Amino acid sequence: MRTVHITASTNYDVLIGGGLIDRSGELSAKVVKPCKCMLVADDTVDELYGDRVQISFTYAGFDVRRFAFPAGEGQKNLDTLSDLLEAMAENRLTRTDVVVALGGGVTGDMAGFAAAVYARGIRFIQIPTTLLAAVDSSVGGKTAVDLKAGKNLAGAFHQPALVITDTDVIRELPAEQLACGAAEVVKYGVLYDEAFFARLENGDWHGDMDAVIEKCVQLKRDVVAGDEFDTGARAYLNLGHTFGHAIEQCSGLSVTHGQGVAIGMLMAACAAGCPDDMVLRLAKCLRANGLKTRCEYPADRLTAAALSDKKRAGGSITLVLPEAIGKCCLKKIPVDDLRGCFDAALRRQEVLGL
Amino acid sequence: MRTVHITASTNYDVLIGGGLIDRSGELSAKVVKPCKCMLVADDTVDELYGDRVQISFTYAGFDVRRFAFPAGEGQKNLDTLSDLLEAMAENRLTRTDVVVALGGGVTGDMAGFAAAVYARGIRFIQIPTTLLAAVDSSVGGKTAVDLKAGKNLAGAFHQPALVITDTDVIRELPAEQLACGAAEVVKYGVLYDEAFFARLENGDWHGDMDAVIEKCVQLKRDVVAGDEFDTGARAYLNLGHTFGHAIEQCSGLSVTHGQGVAIGMLMAACAAGCPDDMVLRLAKCLRANGLKTRCEYPADRLTAAALSDKKRAGGSITLVLPEAIGKCCLKKIPVDDLRGCFDAALRRQEVLGL
Repeated sequence: MRTVHITASTNYDVLIGGGLIDRSGELSAKVVKPCKCMLVADDTVDELYGDRVQISFTYAGFDVRRFAFPAGEGQKNLDTLSDLLEAMAENRLTRTDVVVALGGGVTGDMAGFAAAVYARGIRFIQIPTTLLAAVDSSVGGKTAVDLKAGKNLAGAFHQPALVITDTDVIRELPAEQLACGAAEVVKYGVLYDEAFFARLENGDWHGDMDAVIEKCVQLKRDVVAGDEFDTGARAYLNLGHTFGHAIEQCSGLSVTHGQGVAIGMLMAACAAGCPDDMVLRLAKCLRANGLKTRCEYPADRLTAAALSDKKRAGGSITLVLPEAIGKCCLKKIPVDDLRGCFDAALRRQEVLGL
Repeated sequence: MRTVHITASTNYDVLIGGGLIDRSGELSAKVVKPCKCMLVADDTVDELYGDRVQISFTYAGFDVRRFAFPAGEGQKNLDTLSDLLEAMAENRLTRTDVVVALGGGVTGDMAGFAAAVYARGIRFIQIPTTLLAAVDSSVGGKTAVDLKAGKNLAGAFHQPALVITDTDVIRELPAEQLACGAAEVVKYGVLYDEAFFARLENGDWHGDMDAVIEKCVQLKRDVVAGDEFDTGARAYLNLGHTFGHAIEQCSGLSVTHGQGVAIGMLMAACAAGCPDDMVLRLAKCLRANGLKTRCEYPADRLTAAALSDKKRAGGSITLVLPEAIGKCCLKKIPVDDLRGCFDAALRRQEVLGL
């Protein structure tokens, strides 16, 4: 088992290794004195792993209650949040109890947000079951639900008490879900580390899952440690996200987050005027990791979708733009220039045959 | 104009004085650079003061949007919160914009919570229009909405950037609303200051409104400064609230918060075994301030309502019990003993003819 220690307003460990699901209760009991816990999962994950986690937590002395909700990106909303909060209240959870989020980003973000606001804040434990959640959303304390007007518009900063990543579970994911997470893994390479990018380039790193997840969590830790509340360096983690969120929105959420980020990264590289060989190298890497590289939406629809993004400060928007593999920069542009960026990226996509 | 400076994770001023509504924009501009602002009020307050506040903020350079919702305690829920958040998103508020809460505790708590979670936290300004909000809920950063299962079960700690209390507005309140706030004013006397209690005892302090509100805010400031996140001394401010919330719940919210707290304080004094003369002095003071003193609900219903209160830590509940006027203590009792406390309080109420 690998351990990454995160330093934030609350310090906590990220545990990474095979077989951890069945030890999740025992591992949690070292951090959270056994109490009542609300185990939150979507119905798919609940079916697959809910009983095993419940058994482990019960054996460790926790009083386990369960909340399952329909699987799907569209469920990360205020209605499901409301149902969860009411279920926590009906089960009489108190300030000293704990929420356990078992699942991907939807579950972690929503259950984490519920923990952040229930009784003005109780503890929560993340057990990410997707690669995306393991390397990104489960670490760093950003929780949220979507509003009708846009993704993650209501949320809180709330650090987990513990993150437990069972890499056996990750390895059993369907190829499409692994690809979705691989987009974020590749993102860390593009942002910070060309050697790490090179290791991912052929898409044959799944046998090395523990080390790859550990590396991503370490990279994210270093960013978050200096910018817990997202006022500076953390903005780099949005590489591909402004473009990607717009694509997700345009698709009515049928394009997954990871897939959106993958295309978004490539569009950012195109818009930034990166050299052809770099853009093509990135595209090849994404494809080797099972990801598509082509944006199917026109600039006007993308622009409209992006303009509801909360990250705009006043009349400007900050883009993360690659300069080389392993090095990116932030560029603040007027909102009115966004349409031009989308246009430029789509034209270059056309020219390079992506 | 009187100013009380509050020290918390965010420092801010509470401004108290006549005529401040019409200067609210100018006063806010000294703290928050003019930006887009969402002015939130219930329809009653919106009708009375919305235009005056909008004009003042517009004149000071703010871009004012408005959100009005139906007046009433029952509106402080996740549905109204959801509507408000969507309205903020539709108006494209960003992280650097501001929410202005114009109204009583319902508006301040809900708009404050919306500000706490929108884009993971934007600034907000409180303009309390009730005495209750002026002396209690607008100061200290506790925001929340009710769940079906109980009051204030979902919320956040989020300090305002500024509080502006126009005492002309407070003085124009209907007698019943003034009485509701007077309950919290009297509470500060019972908790901390017999001389202050004595000043309130005949109910003839309304001419001295500015000084009385200032005193309450100072007393609250001193408590909150030492315990922003409600893990210690702040518990004293719950005097009358465990009993009071139970009464409010039993009445289906037809008993106001202040009225609930008034009866709750008296029940706490009864349950604590305070001397007859002290209990009767408190009852007389509450009546002089327009408040009822009799609990109409039986112990079993009160107990059931109180048990959904989030303040229980595990199997125990902390009561605030008066020892004398100006001095209270905390007592942690097993949840199972709560029924006995209600019984004792109701019996004593009967004996003393309250």
